Amino acid sequence: MEAENLRWWGWGRRDVSYSLEGRERFWPFLQERLGISGQVVSRPPPLEAILLPPSRLTPRDRTHLERLVGPDGCRTDRRTRIEHAYGKGYRDLIRARRGEFSHPPDAVLYPSDEQQVAALLAWAAEREVAIIPFGGGSSVTGGVEPPEDRPAITLDLARLNRVLALDLRSQTATVEAGILGPDLEAALNDQGFTLGHFPQSFQFSTLGGWIATRGAGATSIRYGKIEAMVEALRVVTPVGVIETSPLPAEAAGPDLKALLVGSEGTLGVITQATLRIHPLPSVRQGEGLLFPSFEAGVEAVRTMLQSGTPPAMVRLSDAEETTAYWAFSPTHRGWKGVRDRLVAAYLARRGYGLDQGSCLMVVQYEGSSDEATFQRRTARRARRAYGGLSLGSGPFRAFYRDRYATPYLRDLLLDYGLMVDTLETATTWERLFPLYQALTQAIRRAILVQAPGALVMTHLSHAYRDGGSLYVTFMGRQAKDPIAQWWMVKRTAMDILITHGGAISHHHGVGRDHVPWLARQRGSQGMDALRALKRTLDPQGIMNPGVLL
Amino acid sequence: MEAENLRWWGWGRRDVSYSLEGRERFWPFLQERLGISGQVVSRPPPLEAILLPPSRLTPRDRTHLERLVGPDGCRTDRRTRIEHAYGKGYRDLIRARRGEFSHPPDAVLYPSDEQQVAALLAWAAEREVAIIPFGGGSSVTGGVEPPEDRPAITLDLARLNRVLALDLRSQTATVEAGILGPDLEAALNDQGFTLGHFPQSFQFSTLGGWIATRGAGATSIRYGKIEAMVEALRVVTPVGVIETSPLPAEAAGPDLKALLVGSEGTLGVITQATLRIHPLPSVRQGEGLLFPSFEAGVEAVRTMLQSGTPPAMVRLSDAEETTAYWAFSPTHRGWKGVRDRLVAAYLARRGYGLDQGSCLMVVQYEGSSDEATFQRRTARRARRAYGGLSLGSGPFRAFYRDRYATPYLRDLLLDYGLMVDTLETATTWERLFPLYQALTQAIRRAILVQAPGALVMTHLSHAYRDGGSLYVTFMGRQAKDPIAQWWMVKRTAMDILITHGGAISHHHGVGRDHVPWLARQRGSQGMDALRALKRTLDPQGIMNPGVLL
Repeated sequence: MEAENLRWWGWGRRDVSYSLEGRERFWPFLQERLGISGQVVSRPPPLEAILLPPSRLTPRDRTHLERLVGPDGCRTDRRTRIEHAYGKGYRDLIRARRGEFSHPPDAVLYPSDEQQVAALLAWAAEREVAIIPFGGGSSVTGGVEPPEDRPAITLDLARLNRVLALDLRSQTATVEAGILGPDLEAALNDQGFTLGHFPQSFQFSTLGGWIATRGAGATSIRYGKIEAMVEALRVVTPVGVIETSPLPAEAAGPDLKALLVGSEGTLGVITQATLRIHPLPSVRQGEGLLFPSFEAGVEAVRTMLQSGTPPAMVRLSDAEETTAYWAFSPTHRGWKGVRDRLVAAYLARRGYGLDQGSCLMVVQYEGSSDEATFQRRTARRARRAYGGLSLGSGPFRAFYRDRYATPYLRDLLLDYGLMVDTLETATTWERLFPLYQALTQAIRRAILVQAPGALVMTHLSHAYRDGGSLYVTFMGRQAKDPIAQWWMVKRTAMDILITHGGAISHHHGVGRDHVPWLARQRGSQGMDALRALKRTLDPQGIMNPGVLL
Repeated sequence: MEAENLRWWGWGRRDVSYSLEGRERFWPFLQERLGISGQVVSRPPPLEAILLPPSRLTPRDRTHLERLVGPDGCRTDRRTRIEHAYGKGYRDLIRARRGEFSHPPDAVLYPSDEQQVAALLAWAAEREVAIIPFGGGSSVTGGVEPPEDRPAITLDLARLNRVLALDLRSQTATVEAGILGPDLEAALNDQGFTLGHFPQSFQFSTLGGWIATRGAGATSIRYGKIEAMVEALRVVTPVGVIETSPLPAEAAGPDLKALLVGSEGTLGVITQATLRIHPLPSVRQGEGLLFPSFEAGVEAVRTMLQSGTPPAMVRLSDAEETTAYWAFSPTHRGWKGVRDRLVAAYLARRGYGLDQGSCLMVVQYEGSSDEATFQRRTARRARRAYGGLSLGSGPFRAFYRDRYATPYLRDLLLDYGLMVDTLETATTWERLFPLYQALTQAIRRAILVQAPGALVMTHLSHAYRDGGSLYVTFMGRQAKDPIAQWWMVKRTAMDILITHGGAISHHHGVGRDHVPWLARQRGSQGMDALRALKRTLDPQGIMNPGVLL
């Protein structure tokens, strides 16, 4: 996709927006809950109005770099530098909308092979210039932001986007790290295969980014997190190439691959990976279920996961998210509207309803027809055991259709002066409900300190035999200093994660934002081990400084 | 189990031996194939006859150590030092049988808690005494052998054998690392759970050893290798305790846990782990299948694994192992013998038979009754697709009954002057059959250089979507210098693994024996990363020197 078609101040494609058509309850709900005016209060400035510090590259640097990657592979133009200045976190978008670009990269380089990557790293190490590996730039943790204290080059991997080899017998694909989600899936689908990795950022994120941050896709129950998909990888570090062997399993010392997955660009540049792929499923269906409470729904998910044949995806919204989901949904007219009211009346008689705390679960059945049948059976048993009700396939179809739309909604809400961000964690089943309660209450309280209302919506997804992930979306009216306001809420939430045994991230990564909590989760010996790796593979400390460590 | 009941010169319990009763084809087969005399040529010496170097501990050291672990926790007696001098590899048993114990530990310490472990490490770091962590001592790669060049203390974890916590909701158990397989399973079974880790060494190996070496059990398809079972762990290193958080998944930098799993005692002492456990299966059944060739059987296994619901265990023997399995089996008399002959005649008419290259596969179905049904269906489809024949449940029952017996057979064969060892690897499906051919041919040729005959028996087990593990047992008549002979065969085999893309180990580990090949598999940057970890966590280099790095 051409960069010109993408938003530098928000999410995704410029020609796509979150549509409010038919969503009659949308503004009334937000006005009532959050006390907003319903007026646009913020718009991004024109690109031309932005004050940008000049690139610190000397003409000699430029000549040298152009020799390394070709003239069109070295860009210092305004638009390119702005597009690579931030990721897509809330703080990033606030700064972009304010036109604040105080420390964009001094240049953006587009190497087209591994040798060019190695040459760029050698040049940067000698000059002590920071290198920021950049895939799709969808980081929400500050993972692609250049440091403020030194010259920095962003290394955009867009040209390393080839599928290098397919081994259909071993069901693996060797792919360059800069490939975007849709391109990778299209290449695999052509051969009858899928990777099965569908994060919400899918359309605008890359293989290398997924691996660098330990991402997870919607169907992680079936296909695993990205770390389970990586059979082998190659990383260009400042001291040379590390390549792990393509093996299904081994017992030859600590797992070197696991040192590199999750390294967030701080040890080197992931240039390619061999991935475990799966035949395209013959069945992909789903169902909406309604549970009397979040706690009952959580127990149902746990039961499914511990059964041996769970659905490919389970997503359980709490009551607040269920209510918001309903409020954000298009209103039906005519007979569909009548049917909606009849369904609501029927559910109310059976004790389910938004005012009863009912919680929506969306479940996806995927695989061979045998597998799908078995997954469906598992879900039915769990539903019955915990008082759930089937709503048929409609809620799944709606979810699946809109699965990549929510990040666009955020841009709309920012226009209207809302703070909106997400936060995710994971913990064991035993700790999950207490963590949920503590976390959502703390976030709500933190928002209400500065805003008249708060929406704190949570879903459980990415479940495992031993626990699950919680994903929280929180909203409130922006305060005068929106970044300080957001940071206060975020800090409160992160502290709760540490004290209640939650992961500081399940799939977004550490980036810059979570650094203060990493040591509290890892302990000092653990941090020493990570730092020792860093010193060994990146002795000059040029790789993505300020991120992770 | 009291140490007095265990063999210091061989495998397992002194009151258990491999029984030859009814195995009428056993000696004739080995005599014909390997040219051995059938006479006992070697017996271990009496314990009292062994010359042992005196312990280098000073009386002051002893006093200090006894203060740390109690008088009965510090042993320097002959039997204890001999029992901890070696693991159970072929070379170990040859040396033990010769009475060669040139470098046993200077003392064996039995700490009973983590504080004692930490205190012992602090003492050793100050004195530059080597520390050898020791679980069940079943290493076959030299993983528990003290170094020859300095004083060494073996740290036997037998007293750290408690189950500390069970979380039945999250299905996890927190257990001390020194617990033996049967004790751990008994504790879990009492609560209706199993770990599902059943390596051949199960009866005499410990949790800590499994984790330190990245072990695998027979049903690894269902339950995973040990690294998949570990949710969290604690390791006492010379610079302090590293503890990872009990989380189902996370995205907070490189996986610290993966640095410690497989560290083989070189970074610290694993003291406890939180393990993912499973409800006891309601079904545990199995079946024998016969395939026309190893290649056809491999394809059938691949198909099963790529189906989504593979059996809990698949074990496919090649033609040589199938033949030996038959030759080693008890001969039936009376009507059972008649039935055997009828079955053989029937199989021959259908084109199956030992002289046709037929290969035996043993398959285990395990889980809920739904799961077992589904696994059975998967196996049936794969069997039919690749020309296999069902032999009913008999072969599975025989396999399951004798699953821990084979290591005892080795001691018997050593008595009769045979070289016998095993070797295991893993690779992708695409590379597996070529690796199998190259490996077995090379081993056979290497044996025949010095022996009149060779048996090279292979099975495929521990299969994955993207590949499988090969386990080779090789036998030949001992040469004059059995260790040089064995080392030549071993070297030949290891070189083939490297050149043909095989793991240098799938579940035995690196130990001392595989060190020369580790760097060839890891590359120099990879080795640098491991060494950096080692320097950081064990700056004095006291932990298991000579192993792994």
